[in-house]
Amino acid sequence: MRLSRYFLPVLKENPAEAQIVSHRYMLRAGMIKQQAAGIYSWLPLGYRVLKRIEQIVHEEQARAGHIPLLMPTLQPADLWRESGRYDDYGQEMLRITDRQKREMLYGPTNEEMITDIFRSHVSSYKDLPLTLYHIQWKFRDEMRPRFGVMRGREFLMKDGYNFDVDKAAALHAYNRHMVSYLRTYERMGLTAIPMRADSGPIGGDDTHEFLVLAATGESEVFYDSAVTELKLGSREVDYDDREAVAAVCAEFTTLYARTDETHDAALFETIPEERRKSARGIEVGQIFYFGTKYSEAMGATVVTPDGSRVPVEMGSHGIGVSRLLGAIIEANHDDKGIIWPEGVTPFAVGIVNLKQGDTATDSACAALYQALTAKGLEPLYDDRDERAGAKFATMDLIGLPWRITVGPRGLGNGVVELTSRRTGVSEEMSLEMAVDRVVQIYAEIA
Amino acid sequence: MRLSRYFLPVLKENPAEAQIVSHRYMLRAGMIKQQAAGIYSWLPLGYRVLKRIEQIVHEEQARAGHIPLLMPTLQPADLWRESGRYDDYGQEMLRITDRQKREMLYGPTNEEMITDIFRSHVSSYKDLPLTLYHIQWKFRDEMRPRFGVMRGREFLMKDGYNFDVDKAAALHAYNRHMVSYLRTYERMGLTAIPMRADSGPIGGDDTHEFLVLAATGESEVFYDSAVTELKLGSREVDYDDREAVAAVCAEFTTLYARTDETHDAALFETIPEERRKSARGIEVGQIFYFGTKYSEAMGATVVTPDGSRVPVEMGSHGIGVSRLLGAIIEANHDDKGIIWPEGVTPFAVGIVNLKQGDTATDSACAALYQALTAKGLEPLYDDRDERAGAKFATMDLIGLPWRITVGPRGLGNGVVELTSRRTGVSEEMSLEMAVDRVVQIYAEIA
Repeated sequence: MRLSRYFLPVLKENPAEAQIVSHRYMLRAGMIKQQAAGIYSWLPLGYRVLKRIEQIVHEEQARAGHIPLLMPTLQPADLWRESGRYDDYGQEMLRITDRQKREMLYGPTNEEMITDIFRSHVSSYKDLPLTLYHIQWKFRDEMRPRFGVMRGREFLMKDGYNFDVDKAAALHAYNRHMVSYLRTYERMGLTAIPMRADSGPIGGDDTHEFLVLAATGESEVFYDSAVTELKLGSREVDYDDREAVAAVCAEFTTLYARTDETHDAALFETIPEERRKSARGIEVGQIFYFGTKYSEAMGATVVTPDGSRVPVEMGSHGIGVSRLLGAIIEANHDDKGIIWPEGVTPFAVGIVNLKQGDTATDSACAALYQALTAKGLEPLYDDRDERAGAKFATMDLIGLPWRITVGPRGLGNGVVELTSRRTGVSEEMSLEMAVDRVVQIYAEIA
Repeated sequence: MRLSRYFLPVLKENPAEAQIVSHRYMLRAGMIKQQAAGIYSWLPLGYRVLKRIEQIVHEEQARAGHIPLLMPTLQPADLWRESGRYDDYGQEMLRITDRQKREMLYGPTNEEMITDIFRSHVSSYKDLPLTLYHIQWKFRDEMRPRFGVMRGREFLMKDGYNFDVDKAAALHAYNRHMVSYLRTYERMGLTAIPMRADSGPIGGDDTHEFLVLAATGESEVFYDSAVTELKLGSREVDYDDREAVAAVCAEFTTLYARTDETHDAALFETIPEERRKSARGIEVGQIFYFGTKYSEAMGATVVTPDGSRVPVEMGSHGIGVSRLLGAIIEANHDDKGIIWPEGVTPFAVGIVNLKQGDTATDSACAALYQALTAKGLEPLYDDRDERAGAKFATMDLIGLPWRITVGPRGLGNGVVELTSRRTGVSEEMSLEMAVDRVVQIYAEIA
């Protein structure tokens, strides 16, 4: 993308309304625009990151064998009366009356609707296991929306629902989600720690939240510092192998890690003092096993191998897709701007032309653009007629992890400059070598 | 995808509520489920086609140089008061009051919001031309939602908005949209004819609707039959070249083609009688030039090269993404089911195993699956323990354009069978050749 043809409305000033760094940088980098309290437009740069995050979520759900579909944003109230949650949910539920005076709502979550889909079409254990998920806009009418996309009212969530014939199978689905989520967050460059949590309005017995440590987090968390060293890395996990999946979960959940809701001070004291940590965390996902809570209330049953009919065992599993942008920025920035991890960056690399209009420099930039694009890496090429300082400031603010700077002096010596946004280190090398280096960096994370 | 692990709830019976063939087949093929009047869940097969259509739209908008973003589904009422449409819009607008008693609405279209984004960030002709678009869920509270996704209340639309410094530039944007839409529909296997139309509540001077001829269409149309022979084909159009783009538009809009709203009986009579046709059509898109209607009302101005300040010239351009599934099926089906064009098919090819459990047949199917997947063509493999007749009926219903049938008798002769869903013609060939043939077919449409 050529910046002269793009829509990247960066702001020079810090917006007064933004209290935390991710909100500030998302506004300054032209990623979002507030349209009403807690309701945002995703401007082109923000939209690209949102799509990138969605894509990683889809890929990891596919790897776990989970099936995508899409439920609508609006739901009939009657469905929620079946579970009893229509009255329970309170003012956070946005209630709507249509022209025919039918009661509707903007879905804050989808347990009822997915259970309705299941009961309409599935009646035998032979069709199980089944996990269905979607990535769809939700609405929760927060009393005090704040922190930009971190606590918005209209927000994008991945929510998935497993249907299993018995508790053992449902717990395997729970574990499968945990592993797929660990891999999802790692690909986004995040350390998200699964912590034993409280089930809240979804209900259920087993639940873990995934928390990213950040000073601006809303939750207080307590953990053994060794838990932050755990990595799934590139190991292959066979999602059909219950024991293998359970072993990974055990590795990630044995060390102490809890939110304040489930914190056990006595148990915490047993951790060696130097590893005993308390901090703030941002919740970026949660998994639940809740058994037959919804299937019993809504009559979603299956015939078992022995011919009896039982309510199906379920769980639900969510990732806060839009909120992840905020969490990633909270964990990856400096005083110049955002530092995107390669996995989610809106453009693979920035190209800065130091002398727009100079024939040799323009054509080197065009060649670089072409070479990167041919390798499937879309660059953002700052081809504007601007000072070098302004171009660098924009690139630093929007946080592309790699920048290639092209100018007449370097070209005279046959080199361009490759700069890491994270370390700030620059290296001179030939144009071809710069392309190869960037290609190699992205090949390693693919 | 292995069918034994998929969620494809096909129905044997014709659903009583479906009056037109696309609605009937979408329900029977397990593509959609109605959740409320005019509100649907997109089950996994339907979701795949929806995503495929979205992808084609995105690719063709990128080719035309248009920039994607994403606006929210809910909008503040005050924005619509600025244009005067809040009161004009009537009962089709779904009005919502939030917990703070603020007036909101579920966006039926986005002229006001995109103009708000523009005026907040752009003030110079130097940032033009600019075309921004999104693909987002909309809501229109239709009095009588019907025909499945063809006239739903919650529906997915691509809507794009151009911003230009003068009328000539805005008309070029209009033409650019026309060409990009022609290419978009052709890639979906559709003949969509641009017809001079009426501007309705959007307002504006110039507008064309794109109509797919189908007996179940809601619009009456009148055209010169020669217009149905026009094809954009694989020609390259330089979207920056105003004359080249205008020439394509002239080619597609010179022959008579109008909806009943703009029909001119006297002019129609001048067409040779054998080419004079009237028929029904399904509207799948519309482009508008409306000049400064919104920019004047909302104060969206730019400084021109001579230093004066003028309201920006605009147009809006829409594609009915979710409705396209219905239109494609109306135009591509037979009495056994859907016949997907290759461009939008949910899976590239179906694999039917005639003897599940037979070692040689199972391993040939696995090899076939592997070979197709390695070429980037995802097959749907019917690995269920079912009769051949039932497997064929399902494949015919869901309409994958190509089927490879694998059985012990064929394998004994070293062959599998490749069948075209459209022609019904089967050919025997080696497994490798079947893979090559399918790869070649999809390479040709890429």
